[in-house]
Formats: sequence, C-alpha cells, structure tokens
Amino acid sequence: MSSPRERLVVTMAHQLREHGVEGTGLRPLVAAANAPWGSLRHYFPGGKDQLVSEALAWSGSFAGGLITAYLAAGPPTADGLLDVVVGWWVRDLERRDFALGCPVAATVADCAHTNATLRAAAQDALEVWRAPLQQGLRQLGLDAANADEVSIVVLSALSGAILLSRARRSTEPLRIVQRRLAPLLAPS
Amino acid sequence: MSSPRERLVVTMAHQLREHGVEGTGLRPLVAAANAPWGSLRHYFPGGKDQLVSEALAWSGSFAGGLITAYLAAGPPTADGLLDVVVGWWVRDLERRDFALGCPVAATVADCAHTNATLRAAAQDALEVWRAPLQQGLRQLGLDAANADEVSIVVLSALSGAILLSRARRSTEPLRIVQRRLAPLLAPS
Repeated sequence: MSSPRERLVVTMAHQLREHGVEGTGLRPLVAAANAPWGSLRHYFPGGKDQLVSEALAWSGSFAGGLITAYLAAGPPTADGLLDVVVGWWVRDLERRDFALGCPVAATVADCAHTNATLRAAAQDALEVWRAPLQQGLRQLGLDAANADEVSIVVLSALSGAILLSRARRSTEPLRIVQRRLAPLLAPS
Repeated sequence: MSSPRERLVVTMAHQLREHGVEGTGLRPLVAAANAPWGSLRHYFPGGKDQLVSEALAWSGSFAGGLITAYLAAGPPTADGLLDVVVGWWVRDLERRDFALGCPVAATVADCAHTNATLRAAAQDALEVWRAPLQQGLRQLGLDAANADEVSIVVLSALSGAILLSRARRSTEPLRIVQRRLAPLLAPS
C-alpha cells in the first residue's frame, strides 16, 4: 500500500522510539521497512540525518494530528484534551508492553549537542506537536500567554512521564501526571 | 586524585549525558577517563552494562545528594526545593551550552526495551533521586500519598523540560516548569 519511501520514514520513526538514533542501524531499518537497499540512497541523498529528520517531522505531525482531529470533533474539554495527549501514551505503552517511547526525546537525548541538524528537526517536531495543543488550550479559555506556558508544562510532564513509566514498566507515572495537570487547564 | 575506577564511572555518566548509551564507545571513554585500557575489564568484568549501571547509580546519588544537602541545611521552602531540583538544571545547561542532558533519560530512551539490566539500573537511579525529594515534600507539609504523586510530577516535568530546553537551546521551558509547579508544593 505505502511506497518504499513512506515505509522507510515510518519504520525509522518506529526504530527511534525503540533504539534511539545511535542504536538504529540502517541495514536492519531497510530490512524492517521491506525496502530495496538502493532506495535509501535514492530517496534520502542526505543519508541517515535526512531520514531521521523526516521521521521526526512525521512523528510531530502524527502527534499533532491526534490533537487536531480531537479539536475538529467538537468543543474540547480539559479532560478530553489531556486524554488525547497523555491518555494516548498510557494506552500505547500498555498495548506495546512499554517497547516504544518518544522519538523526539530519544533524538534529543542522543545527539542534541552533537548534531545540529537533528536537534533542529527535534525542535521543529515539538513545535508541530505543541501548536494544536496551544490551540486547544485557547479554546478552553486560556489566554495566549497562559496557553503557551501550559503547553510547555504539559509536553514536558508528558515526555518525562513516558521515561518514568518505561523505567518502572508501569503507566502509573503517566496516570498521575494526567490527573495532576488537570487544574492547569482551567481558564485563566 | 580519584582512582581509575572512579574516573571511569564518572566519565561514563558524563558520556551518557552527551551521547546516550549507544553513542558512547568504550575506547574514547577510557581515553577521556585517562585510565589504562586494561582497567576497564579489571574493574568492570560485567562490561559496558556494569559500567553504565554504576554510572547511573552514581548519577542518582549525586542528584539525590543535592536535595539531601539542601534539606540538611535547614527547613525547606517550596521555592528552595524547586530551585535545588529544577534550578540546578537551568544553571547546568546554561553553563555547559546545553551539552549535557540527563543520563537516566538517555538510558531509558535508548534501551528500556532492549536491555533489562540497564532499565532496572535507570529505575533504581530514579528512586534514589526521588526519595529525598519525597522527604522534602513531606517536610513542606504534604501527606505521604501527595508527596509520592508530586515527586513523580516534579521529576517527570523536570526530565521533559530538560529535553525541551536542549531542543530549543533555551532554558525557558525549565523556567516555566519551575514556576508553574510551585502550587503543587503547597501543603495538602
């Protein structure tokens, strides 16, 4: 159904979530994507950096798209918005036995200081994720400055709680964060 | 001053903060630690896993020790406790030009699913870090259940804000988290 190019991007996103940047080898990636080896160089002349950057962009769009779809379905509630942002991760970690974390977090942890291209791609992905969250917070009645800050707190607490939950092999940290952040989403 | 064994542990913690587990090679590590190559096998017969595990234990003790020292200096305040936990990272990131992140976060992102030894070492380090934070929250007047939950939220938001700050090359996410978490530290 999908093209080799698309499969390479999505498979890289998947590998980043499990192994990080440095732990992802291109040979196993191409095999997992069921793509011809030559397609890597053909579609990604910029090499691994280009493929990781596109995987991060895809991931940011995917995560942002979940929020956009929620907002398109009707007026948001605080609980509903937290569920689509944090609750999604509770379900994903439990369904996959904690195998896959956040690809953006893995990229920043591995090479924020050593690879400016990937650092910038991670930052771009975070902003693509954060924009619809800010929009949802505005629809809940938060003013622009407050929505900006609360979106930062929510994405920070979420990213960290994913790490704590994977370390503990329990979604309790994510559940606590989801519950304790709720007051922040009350209108300013 | 320090022994080759100690230097290997501390240097590994440093390398994890910059490169993650997979990005840290043992040859450059031993060179950076100014240790004889043979000392690696001598002191760490369990190989890289043992060294990474000890580096995480050292990091957890270091981070927990900052809080313990703060609590030993007198009765804590909410602002003081947040400063020693979150403010420390603002200063460290700015001082080092965002070069070094959290070694526990990097380990979880790289190999929570693929290396049970390192996942357990990361979880242990998190608990060594969290225990004095919980104690400080109790001293602020939070009951045990509340201190448990708030310590999870604080470490989650901190770990995530380190990632967002490094991605953005700005400590603004950490500063926002430090400010917005303060109400959670009010007695229950």
